[in-house]
Order: sequence, then structure tokens, then C-alpha cells
Amino acid sequence: MRAGPAIEALRPQLKAWRRDFHHHAESGWVEFRTASIVAEELERLGYDVSVGREVIDADSRMGVPEPEVLAQALERARDQGAVARWLPALAGGYTGVVANLETGRPGPVLAYRVDLDALDLQESGDGHHRPAREGFASCNAGMMHACGHDGHTTIGLGLARLFIELKAQLSGRIKLIFQPAEEGVRGARSMVEAGVLDDVDLFIATHIGTGVAKGTVVCGHNGYLATTKLDVTFTGVPAHAGANPESGNNALLAAAQAALGLHAIPRHSAGASRINVGVLSAGSGRNVVPGTATLKLETRGETSEIDEEMQRRALAVLRGAAAMQGVEMAYRLAGEARNCEPSPALVDFIHSHIAGLPGIDNVVATENRPSGSEDATTMMQRVRERGGLATYMVFGTELAAGHHHQCFDFDEDVLPVAIHTLAYLALQADAPALRRHSEKS
Amino acid sequence: MRAGPAIEALRPQLKAWRRDFHHHAESGWVEFRTASIVAEELERLGYDVSVGREVIDADSRMGVPEPEVLAQALERARDQGAVARWLPALAGGYTGVVANLETGRPGPVLAYRVDLDALDLQESGDGHHRPAREGFASCNAGMMHACGHDGHTTIGLGLARLFIELKAQLSGRIKLIFQPAEEGVRGARSMVEAGVLDDVDLFIATHIGTGVAKGTVVCGHNGYLATTKLDVTFTGVPAHAGANPESGNNALLAAAQAALGLHAIPRHSAGASRINVGVLSAGSGRNVVPGTATLKLETRGETSEIDEEMQRRALAVLRGAAAMQGVEMAYRLAGEARNCEPSPALVDFIHSHIAGLPGIDNVVATENRPSGSEDATTMMQRVRERGGLATYMVFGTELAAGHHHQCFDFDEDVLPVAIHTLAYLALQADAPALRRHSEKS
Amino acid sequence: MRAGPAIEALRPQLKAWRRDFHHHAESGWVEFRTASIVAEELERLGYDVSVGREVIDADSRMGVPEPEVLAQALERARDQGAVARWLPALAGGYTGVVANLETGRPGPVLAYRVDLDALDLQESGDGHHRPAREGFASCNAGMMHACGHDGHTTIGLGLARLFIELKAQLSGRIKLIFQPAEEGVRGARSMVEAGVLDDVDLFIATHIGTGVAKGTVVCGHNGYLATTKLDVTFTGVPAHAGANPESGNNALLAAAQAALGLHAIPRHSAGASRINVGVLSAGSGRNVVPGTATLKLETRGETSEIDEEMQRRALAVLRGAAAMQGVEMAYRLAGEARNCEPSPALVDFIHSHIAGLPGIDNVVATENRPSGSEDATTMMQRVRERGGLATYMVFGTELAAGHHHQCFDFDEDVLPVAIHTLAYLALQADAPALRRHSEKS
Amino acid sequence: MRAGPAIEALRPQLKAWRRDFHHHAESGWVEFRTASIVAEELERLGYDVSVGREVIDADSRMGVPEPEVLAQALERARDQGAVARWLPALAGGYTGVVANLETGRPGPVLAYRVDLDALDLQESGDGHHRPAREGFASCNAGMMHACGHDGHTTIGLGLARLFIELKAQLSGRIKLIFQPAEEGVRGARSMVEAGVLDDVDLFIATHIGTGVAKGTVVCGHNGYLATTKLDVTFTGVPAHAGANPESGNNALLAAAQAALGLHAIPRHSAGASRINVGVLSAGSGRNVVPGTATLKLETRGETSEIDEEMQRRALAVLRGAAAMQGVEMAYRLAGEARNCEPSPALVDFIHSHIAGLPGIDNVVATENRPSGSEDATTMMQRVRERGGLATYMVFGTELAAGHHHQCFDFDEDVLPVAIHTLAYLALQADAPALRRHSEKS
Repeated sequence: MRAGPAIEALRPQLKAWRRDFHHHAESGWVEFRTASIVAEELERLGYDVSVGREVIDADSRMGVPEPEVLAQALERARDQGAVARWLPALAGGYTGVVANLETGRPGPVLAYRVDLDALDLQESGDGHHRPAREGFASCNAGMMHACGHDGHTTIGLGLARLFIELKAQLSGRIKLIFQPAEEGVRGARSMVEAGVLDDVDLFIATHIGTGVAKGTVVCGHNGYLATTKLDVTFTGVPAHAGANPESGNNALLAAAQAALGLHAIPRHSAGASRINVGVLSAGSGRNVVPGTATLKLETRGETSEIDEEMQRRALAVLRGAAAMQGVEMAYRLAGEARNCEPSPALVDFIHSHIAGLPGIDNVVATENRPSGSEDATTMMQRVRERGGLATYMVFGTELAAGHHHQCFDFDEDVLPVAIHTLAYLALQADAPALRRHSEKS
Repeated sequence: MRAGPAIEALRPQLKAWRRDFHHHAESGWVEFRTASIVAEELERLGYDVSVGREVIDADSRMGVPEPEVLAQALERARDQGAVARWLPALAGGYTGVVANLETGRPGPVLAYRVDLDALDLQESGDGHHRPAREGFASCNAGMMHACGHDGHTTIGLGLARLFIELKAQLSGRIKLIFQPAEEGVRGARSMVEAGVLDDVDLFIATHIGTGVAKGTVVCGHNGYLATTKLDVTFTGVPAHAGANPESGNNALLAAAQAALGLHAIPRHSAGASRINVGVLSAGSGRNVVPGTATLKLETRGETSEIDEEMQRRALAVLRGAAAMQGVEMAYRLAGEARNCEPSPALVDFIHSHIAGLPGIDNVVATENRPSGSEDATTMMQRVRERGGLATYMVFGTELAAGHHHQCFDFDEDVLPVAIHTLAYLALQADAPALRRHSEKS
Repeated sequence: MRAGPAIEALRPQLKAWRRDFHHHAESGWVEFRTASIVAEELERLGYDVSVGREVIDADSRMGVPEPEVLAQALERARDQGAVARWLPALAGGYTGVVANLETGRPGPVLAYRVDLDALDLQESGDGHHRPAREGFASCNAGMMHACGHDGHTTIGLGLARLFIELKAQLSGRIKLIFQPAEEGVRGARSMVEAGVLDDVDLFIATHIGTGVAKGTVVCGHNGYLATTKLDVTFTGVPAHAGANPESGNNALLAAAQAALGLHAIPRHSAGASRINVGVLSAGSGRNVVPGTATLKLETRGETSEIDEEMQRRALAVLRGAAAMQGVEMAYRLAGEARNCEPSPALVDFIHSHIAGLPGIDNVVATENRPSGSEDATTMMQRVRERGGLATYMVFGTELAAGHHHQCFDFDEDVLPVAIHTLAYLALQADAPALRRHSEKS
Repeated sequence: MRAGPAIEALRPQLKAWRRDFHHHAESGWVEFRTASIVAEELERLGYDVSVGREVIDADSRMGVPEPEVLAQALERARDQGAVARWLPALAGGYTGVVANLETGRPGPVLAYRVDLDALDLQESGDGHHRPAREGFASCNAGMMHACGHDGHTTIGLGLARLFIELKAQLSGRIKLIFQPAEEGVRGARSMVEAGVLDDVDLFIATHIGTGVAKGTVVCGHNGYLATTKLDVTFTGVPAHAGANPESGNNALLAAAQAALGLHAIPRHSAGASRINVGVLSAGSGRNVVPGTATLKLETRGETSEIDEEMQRRALAVLRGAAAMQGVEMAYRLAGEARNCEPSPALVDFIHSHIAGLPGIDNVVATENRPSGSEDATTMMQRVRERGGLATYMVFGTELAAGHHHQCFDFDEDVLPVAIHTLAYLALQADAPALRRHSEKS
């Protein structure tokens, strides 16, 4: 591949993009500025760009903020330099972007997925935190790129530039997917349901960091747990706690019973499981029998089957706890993801092709320490269901602090390494080895 | 009244009866020997005697022992001197006796109710305990007259003898009711449903002791709490706790959730309430997810309305707790009683008539310290519903230890005092003052 | 008494005061404007006025807002017409006022206590709500006089004016006590500890409404429950709920266990008890093992002994729940009051003197329905401990909605009735009947 | 090896032993008859036999039955043909046997461990159950060899006979360990603490069945979970639930809180964990605040570190739950075992030597499905700590029903296969390959 010099030339642009996105951090479903800049650049490069409801199924979105929050965020994006002509399509929380590059030569549809969103977290202003020290810390209060998605978006744009230069060497079709709302595993399903993955033969999702050392690349990370996120409300009857406590139906006690019952769901012999009631808020005043309570909870499982069993038990616990206190229970799915199952053939192919590429010291086939969750897994499953191959690659880098920490930062050298490696794979993607395994090719 | 000498003559017999019943203590629904001796004596005296299913409605009995227990107790009664000809009618737990004495003169039906049963308690063998010292402690293991019902039965028989002597001075009809299974408030309902109370104009239930001083008589005790007794079973699915805990449905956890939820039922602003899970037994082995759990619980209320609200909430808690763990819940009513509401007119009448009778130093109208429960209240309500007047009298006496204690004993001097007072009231029972208030008279 | 015409002349001023205080509602410890106007008027009338730390013991205050809240409220009070010269003494939450009127004649110290504070509640803007319709609804967001303390403050000022006119007929000393922060039972203790009650021979606290009919006066309300308010914090260790849940110490589960354990504290056989966890807030994010939880709770008892037992049990539950999860527990007393025990001699005296006064149709000696709580009881106890007599009077009036309701309003006709009655009692206060019972007189 | 014919000759004896032990099933610590027969046979063969306190450390025994149970079982053993001269040493629950055979040639100490005890389980009398049909079902009510230890004991005796025949070909010392009370993981520690394992260079524990197919041998089973068994007692204060519930301290509620808290102990990210409260029994009567409660619980972990963390958390939960209710908590260790960590060198050695032996179709190195627990692991750890090598072998066989099922039975053909294989290994045990890894050899 002759991409080396091209990437070196890109370095300043990569740094500029990453820091601009970091500075203007936008959390899930309000990535209006970020998505508009991405769409504008992709269209400028000559990609066929789709945004908004074309690539996001409205009803499949999870955890969308309230309308006023969306409206305020849109105004802020406009003020902070969003490309105005894209905003109407993105407004209301449809912040996905998909770009296609047709090579004109037969070959597979090769898709790359990156994510756009920041976390709901206040970034550190400490002088030891490089973004603060060098002036690119988030200017948006309570939002921070503390997981590296600013880097992922940059990788997506860097790939886009490179593929234009490499176009003559490519075959089939390149598809770049910029997903909103990965945090809370809320966004992937809406792109899957909009059909974005239906024509994909080969699929690669990417993450930087995650505890992998600089210079190491994981070809098929499979440690992500399947997960389900639920928002729960108990609605009872308030009453004066001194004058007539017997008139109340106590939503706080229902929530307390539920919290204990949820954490007491049995362990699963088939693999790791998790349960967490992360937030509980109940009651309105000290002397009032609490009439309302809300819970934010999540289940996880080493396999989707385990997670489904956890979810089934969780709903029984919630319903029963409500019945105990004579209160109503309602819940809303606030996020979900499957466990991560990379296609062995694609993992093997990558494993056998990328050793020795610039910046890569160590190539690891799979890595299955159970840990967090990731909703690219929903995309991967759709690709596999339709006969394609899918994997999840991790590019190691040094971190200043762990993911989701207010002092998170990463070594930007990982960006050209990832772009080069991912682009290199595109040049090999029409290989017979892959065609054999992909039912569609 | 000319009863004085007659009662003095009775003293040795009263002592003999009381100690015989004490020695052969029989608990609820197995009072075969006691009931047969009572029936025999009453018939001998010339009363019209009904026993068994004539006075006990089978389906309204609560907390009846298992058939084998009933059968063994019947054999034991036979061995201990039961009057054999009554046993067929009593067999199977129909141990009530009702005796009528028609005076031939117009007047009210005046009913007295006493109870027959002992407690499931092992009597003390200590030398300081008079029944042990003097050789009349219970010969039946695990059964003891620790509440004074042996005295009550004796009062009933003493009254029966006296009324025969006083017959010429009486009017209307005398009805003597010997109830089984008062402990656990299990027996009264079955006599009510058999119609025993339907023709009663004036009703007096009696207790000795209860913290009332020797020489004091309470005309209308109204401190008994309404109560409901429930036996509850949770049935889940056992599983190996190491190999596949997720296959189980945990009945022990359902019971634990229920116990907490039951005790957390809100206090009632309209009066005293109570809840107690007295017994919980769950699980079969350390390494097995528990498939079954049983609870014995009770609710109480200062009024029957409060107790009903407690019961309604308790069932919701039980159902919800079962649903939380995916187990089945079944329950059985094991006892119930209403709160005690003596008829004011009858209380006033008694209050104004008994001062100065032998052995009475102090006459108290009502006494409403909330305490235990008593199922004569179910009879009282039936009487009142049909227009009659009803009360619950307490005759004070010194106790060696509290009711239900293994060293319980009482001063037998209370027996002639109670009999004399109750008989005296029968002589006044056709008074216009009572006729006015009793709708039926 | 020749007060009648004087009161009639006061009517417009009473209405003006009440509506001004209602419009500028200030909640507990921030009654800066209200207290300054009260102090200014009392000093103008010739009373000896004490405010701030002279009448408020700093360390005995409970539930004081954060310093920034106090500072903002002070500025708002200044903007809304507070009398500036009193503000330095009131600043920081020392909003009590005490005024003395020495008659120069021997006689008892007769104290009247009213309260100044509004509730933390948003007043209704509905057109059916008279304050909204007539333009005197609260101008302070989230604060509302929904309990009638605006009326109580007005009664205090009306009495102050009247006593100046009646001075020649009075003996002993009149003491007017304007208490802050009655809501949440937070303020009385600080005035007691400052010694405000130590010289009082006769004490009358006052409330309007509370379900008592217009025209009815209760001479000695004794239904208030003793109460204790606690703010509780559990501090554990947060952890990622997917990656390493075993590293966390779960404060939410501690709070849930505690909530159940608190509500399961046994009922008390000596009288009514109450427990309520009114507010529970725990956790920071769905996927984080919750590291903190806070509870706002209260216990109550028909007697202070019952409440103390409830509090003792509550603290055991809280400590145990923390230990179960390995988290720290800390609590703060946020309010407390005793049960209400009016002095029988004072109740009898009032009962026998006020029948037939203008506006009074019905005089009730005592009224003991258990209901809410009131911290004037702390003052009453101090008065009784030092040999004085104390009572709590209720003046009935029609309410537009119940106390603490956002549409609460009352019939202002109650104000002159209460002032006239309370002033009339001052004219009789040197009676031998009271002197006999008050050890100090 | 020329052992083949010798084993064939043994077949009738093996069947006789197995069925005799099966018929006279004795559970943990009361294996008086079984141990006496084993000791007698070993001594007869010429082994140096130690029994009782020589091989059992009294204080390290766990879950020993009450003295009267031990005494009755001893009498029963005597009645059922125990060899009387061994009983004095075994009496009181010291039912271990160790036999040494000194070859006179230098070489390692090679130990085999088998277990003696039956389960507390009633054996099926169904005609489909071979032991019932053929008349060797357990004659001891509530005790049954439902795990195969009758087979293990038989394997031990078969090996003993064979080693006498093979003595001339053996080197070093053979040590046969017959352990009591493996069920409930109660017995191994007492043999370890008595020093039985301290001189062992090579150690092989054995199990038949466990889901492994007939013909398959597992050289190093490593799926057993570390486990801790606790018996817990809560002691509170009983009280009458109607009359004075506030006087009680409720042990049942402490147990309920504990059960929920125990099951809510967080999952461990380092591997499988388990918790089970298998039995909860609380309270004495429906109307009594429960004064006592007992729990039987167990924790497990994929590693001993995880189990220790579970145990640490469990004790915090138990202590906190007791504190919540003001009751006392006491616990007793009722059993414990480590996770299974076979020495790789010994596993490899066995794996490479036994293929093709009679009855073996398939040799598996390791098998790590997490499942139950086994206290031979405590012996294995002691051997490894002192520089020896240890493993746990499984010999597959067909089962009529799962282990611990009342219809459990196995194909007795596995007995000669296991004996032959284990004896064959003794002939190779002085191999350099093993000497290299064992620090002591």
C-alpha cells in the first residue's frame, strides 16, 4: 500500500478534527454540530451521503432526550458552527450519517462503523489534564469526550479522505457509518432497523484504548457483554405520613423491595451475568408517603441468552414489587446491546494480514475479558444474519486516565495507525478467503 | 338469691372438675374426653344436649389438625376415661357441646359461653408449680391448660348444676355453650355458622384472670383486638445451588421479601394495628435453591375494619412477593376474631346489679387496654346482629404466672364467685331494662 | 373588656398585614423581610424588642439552609422591602423576634407564641384560588403560606397593638414570641435553648384551622405527635457495574435495606407510632455501583417516649444496614418536637372563661385526634419544667383547601376573633385559680 | 502390568464389597461399620493401619453430629456387623482410616484418597431402582450411597489387595487414605491437620461418574468450586405480638434481611461465584415475635479468592442484619473446600501413560465445567504446598440417575477399570518426569 505518505500528510488535519470534536463535545442524539461537519466533509469528498431519518428509524431510537433539550442543543450547535444546511434533517435527534463510495469494480460492500457521541460528564479543568491545559477541553458543560469517540469520528473522516486517494485500487463499495448515541447502547438499533446494514458483506467496528497497549491490535474483541437498560417508574398514592399513612401506596418501598430483589436474581451457570440499579429516586417530602419512584437499571450477560434471562427475571421482580405495595409499574427500554461475536473467518483474515504494518508491534486474535457493553454488536448480528462477516477491532493506545474518567485523554498517534490499518484491509477485502466464508459474496 | 349455700356445697366438685380437666388437658378440636364428660353431666342433669355436627359447622372450622392426629387423640381420650357413647358424634374434630334448659316461663334466651381447649404447650414440672406439686399437671405431653379454660369449663358445669336448683325462679330459656378451639381463635365461627347463637337474646362470655385483680369484675371487656390468622405456602422450583442456580425459583427469598413487606404495612390512623410473621420455615438443604417456604402470620386491629385493611394489604404483599420470585402462593385462614364490642345496655345493667355480691370488691364497667384476641367476639356480633345484647365479663383472680406461661395457675376461689354472679344475673334477666334494648325480647 | 371597637378599627390593618406576608412568603430561617417588619412595628409600639442571636441559639437550630441560599434570600428580602436596620442581626438564619411589654404591676409573665415561616411549596395560580385572583399570591417561587402562619404573624401584631391600648388594665409582663422555621419542627428548640421561655409563667401557642369549625375554639389541643426528623447519608464505594462490581460498596442497597427495616419497626402497644422515609435518592449513573444515598425520614409517637423508642430503633436499623453493605452512615437531626401536653389547669381556666366572647359559638376543652406535629410543644415543655402553665389553642375557621395544599386559604374573620379572645385572657391572667397551679406565680 | 488376571479374580469381591457398603450406608462421621471393615481388611493384608484420632484432628472436624446421634449410630454399626475391636478408636466421630505399605525400595510416597460416607437421603424403594430390586438398597433410614462413595471405598480396598500382589514391582511407599464426611466438605481438613498428607509426594483423588461417559477418564478435573458452608443463628428477644410487640427483637426479620442481603452480594468479575441460603427456620409460634432464627448457607467461587471474598461479604451482611434488629448473631463453619487445581505435570504424565489401558476409550487432560465442590482439594493444596504433585481423576460410568438422586446407581464395571488404571500408575510413579517436578523427590 502506498498510503503511508498520504497519512503523514493528514496528521495535522487529524489532530485538528479530533480536538475540534473534543472541544465541542455533544452527547447522544444531540451530535448536531459533529454530524453536520461530518456530512459536509463527506459530501465535499464526493461520497453519496445520507443523514437523518434516511439512516435512523425513529421508533427504534432509545433514550432520546426530551424535546426541549433537543431544541436547545440544536440552537447551541448552530451557535457553535454547525453546517446549517444539514440541520433540518438532523433536528429532533436523527444524528446519524452514512456515506457510500462506489468503486465501479465488482466486490464486496465493506462497511466501517464509528461513533459520534460524548458522555454526560463534566470534563476536568485541572492543569494536568492536557485538553484543559491546551485549550480544547469541552466547552459544553456536563458533556465530555471521555471514551474516545472524538478519535473514532476522526478515524472515520481520515478513512474517507484516504479512500478517495486509493479509489483506483479498491473494488466493491465502501460504506462509512457514523453512529449517534453509542453511550448507553441507544443508537445502533435505529440504524439497523433503517436498513443501513442490510447490504453489508464485511463489517468492521473500531475502538481505541480499552486497556490494550500501544502498538497492539485486537482483531476480534469478544469481551463485550450483552446488556439491557431499563427506566422504571413506580406510581403509588401519596398520603400524609402522620395523619393517615394507611391511605398511601408507597412507591419508595416498592422500589426498595425491587432493588433488593433485582440484585438477588440468581447467578447463571452458563456464564457471567450482571445487574445494577444505578439510580433510585423516590418521594417528594419527608412527611409524605412517597407516591412516585424511579429506577435506572441495567442487566448484562456473557451471552444474549443470559441477558434475556436476567431481563425476564428483572421484569418479574419489578411487577411483583409493585403488586406488593399496590402501586403501578411502567418501564421503558433505554438501551440494549448483544454480546460480541466476531466472525472467526474475518478475525483470522485480519490476524494474518496486518502484522508488520506501521505502528503495529503485536497482533492479537481475540480478547474476551468480560467488561462493558457496545451496541455495534447489534449491527454485527444483522450483518451475520444476512450472510456477511463482522468483527470488532481495538487499537491500543496510552490513556491518561480510564475510559469515562473526567481526565480521560489518549495518545493521538493511534489515529494514523488505525486509519492506515483499516484502509489496508480495504485493499485486501476482495480476497477469496473472505469470499468463501461470506455467503453473499 | 338463695344460691349461696348451694355453691358452697359445690366447692369440692368444682375443684375436682377443674383439676381433672387440667390433668387431662386437650388442645383445640381434640377435646374429646372433656366434651364427653361435659355432655354426660349435662344430660344427667336433665338438659337438652346437642353435640358434634349439630352445633359445629364442618366447613367453618379453622385450624383443624390432620386426620391422623385427630384419630390418635380420640384413642387417647378413650384410654383416659372419655364417656364412650358421645365419642362417635365428637370424632373428627366436632367437639362442641350445647345444652338448653327450658324453664316453661316466658322470658329471654340467656346464653353463657365457656371454652374447653388447652394450649399446645409443655407444662412445667417444677416443684414450685402447684399442679406439678399436687399431682394434677397435664398428663398429655405438649398440652397444657395455661389460659384457664379448665376453670371456664368448670364454671359452665357449676352453672348447670345451680340452674337446676334455681329452675323455679328462672324464666325464659338458659343455654350453655361449651366451645372448642378458642386458642388460635378457630372454633367460634363454626358454632355461629351452625346457628347456635341465632335464638339468643342475652349473651355472656366469661374469662378469669387477664390481669384483673382478685375481687374485681369487668362487666364489658372491650380490649380484644380483631385478628386474622393465615397459614401461607410458597411453592417454587428447587435447583442445585452450585450447578444451575438459574433454574430455580426461590421460595425462601419470596418468604423473606414477604416478611419484610408484611411488617412494613403502614400503621393505621384509626387505631391500633398489629402484624406478626411468627413462624417461617423454608428450604430443604444447604446446597439446594429452596423450593418451598411456609409462614404462619397474624394481623390484628383495634377494630375489625382495621384488621380487614391489614389483611387486604397482607394478601397483596404475599401475592407480590410470590410474583417477584416466580413462585406460587397459597394461603388458608387459620383463625379469626372480631374486636370486642359489648352492648352498652347489658354492660350498664350488669354494672348496676352485681356490686356487693359475695367475693366482689370492685365492679368496673369497661376495660379497653388493647391486648390479645378472643373469638367469642364472633358470637357476640351474631347476637347483636339479630337484635340481642352481648357482653364479655372478666372475673379477676391471682395468677401464679401470666396466661400462656408454662407455670400458669390461678386461685380456684374465683370459680364459685363467677358462678354465683353469673347465676344471679340469670335471675334478673327478664328485667324491663334489658327488654327495652333487646329488639327481640 | 372594652377591646371590641379597638379590634374593629384594626380589621383593615389585619387584612393588609396578612396579605402582605402571604404575598412575600418566606420559608424557614429566611423570614428576613417578615421578621424585620415585625420587629420594626413592635419597637414602634414601644415594646422592648430582641432579635437574632439574642433569641436564637445558633447550635440548636435544625435544618438551616446552605449559606448561599441564606445570602440570596437576604438580598431578595432587601429588594422586597425589608426594614434594613434589622437585617444585620437576622442575617444567616437568626430570624426570631421577641417583644416584652412591662406593665409595671405585679403579675405573671404571659407569653404568646406565633410562627413566621411559609412552606416550600409552589402556590396555585388558578383563578379559583383567592390569593391568585385578588393578587396577593406568593411572589416567591416555591414558597407559600399554605399553613396559615401569615395569619398567626398577623395575630401576633394585632395583639401587640391591642395590648398597648389595654396596658392600664394589664398586670405582670406580656411577652410576644415570633418563631421562625416551625415547618419541619426546626425552630422552637433554638429559642428554648436561648432562654426565651425561662421566665414564662403562662404560655399560649395558637393555630387557626386544623379541621376545627368556624366559631369553635379548642382550649388545649393535645393531638400533636412527638416527632424526630433525620437526614441520613450512606457513603459507599462506586465501581463500574459491568467491569468490577465486586469492588463497590453499594449505598443504594444499604438505603433500600434501611427503608424496609425502618418501616418494619414494631408498633408500640403504649400508643400511636409512625415512621416514614419520605425521600430516598441514590446513585449517579445507570452503570455505576451507587456510592452515595440520602434519606429524609421522620418518626412520630403519641408520647415522646414512644418517639424516642422509634428513634432508637431507627438508628439501629440505619447502622446495621450500613454495616451490611460495608458503607458509612451519617445522620443529622433535622427537626424534633414533643407530643402536646397542655396544662389541665390552664385548659380548664380558659374553658371556663371564653364562652360567649364575640365570634365563639362552641368551646372545646381538649381535642386529641393524633395527626401532625408542632414544635411549640418544646416551648410548652420548658415552661412546664420551670413550673409554669402552657397550652395550645386552636381557632376554627373555614379553609379553601387543607393545610399544606397549594390552594390553601382561610376566612380572615378568624383573625379578630383570635386576637380578642387571646387579649381577653390577658386581662384575666392574674387570677388566683392560675396562681395556685403555677409554682412560680 | 500383569495385573489384569488379578483384577478379574477380584470382580466378585468388588461387587460384594460395593453392595455391602451400599446396603449399610452410613453418613458423614458415623461410618463406624464401614471404617471398621476397611481397617480390618487392610490390617489383614499386612498394611500398617492408623485410625481414629491418629488420622483425624478433633478440632478441625466440621459438621459433626450431636453426641447422642453418634452414640446411636455406633450401636447400630455394632448390630450391623462392625468389627468390634476397631470401634473404640472410631467412636465419637473419628472414622478415618490410613494404611501404609512400605515397599523397601526408594521412591516417592504415592497416596490415593477415597471417601467413605453416604448422604442423608432416603433411598428409593421403587422396583426400577436396581439396589431395591436386587436387595442391596440401604437398610438405614434416611441414609443412602447416592454419590458413589460405596464404589470409591471398594476401589480403595481393591487397590489394597492388588498392591500386595504387585509389591515386588513397586518402589517407595503406598498410602491409602479413606476419608470420612466428604459430603458437606467436612472431613478432609481434619485429616490434613492431623498431618496425613505431610509426607506425600504424589496424590491422586478419585471420583466415578460426574457426567463423564463410560470409557472416558479425566486426568485432572478442575471444575470444582471453592466453597464455604456456614450455620448461622440469630438470637433475639421474643414478645407477645399483640400485647407488647415493641418489647421484642425480631430474629426472623434479621434472617429475612440477611437472606436478601446475601443473595444480593455482587457478582465477581474474576470468575463464577455462588451464594445460597438453603434453609431458614425462624420463630416458635404465630403470635410471638420470633426470638430465634437459623440459616444454613454456602458460598462458592471459581477460585478460593472469590469464595473468600463472598465469605467476607456474607459475614458483613449477617452482622449488619443482626445489628438492624438488635439481635445476636453467631456462626459456625460447617464445611469448606478449595477450588480444584491439579498439578499440570502430574496431569500430563497420567495423560501420556494411560491411553489404551483396559476399559479406557478416551483420555481427557482437564475438564473445567464449574459445578459442585469437593474437599479433596484441601488435601491437594497441602500436598502442593509441601512440594508434591496432586491431581483429581474421574472415571466415567453410566448412571441410572444423577448424583444425589434417590435413584442413583452406577455401572459396577467402572470399578476394575479404575483399580487397574490407578495401580498401573503406581508402577510408573518413580518416573524421572515426575521426580523433576516434585520438589521433594
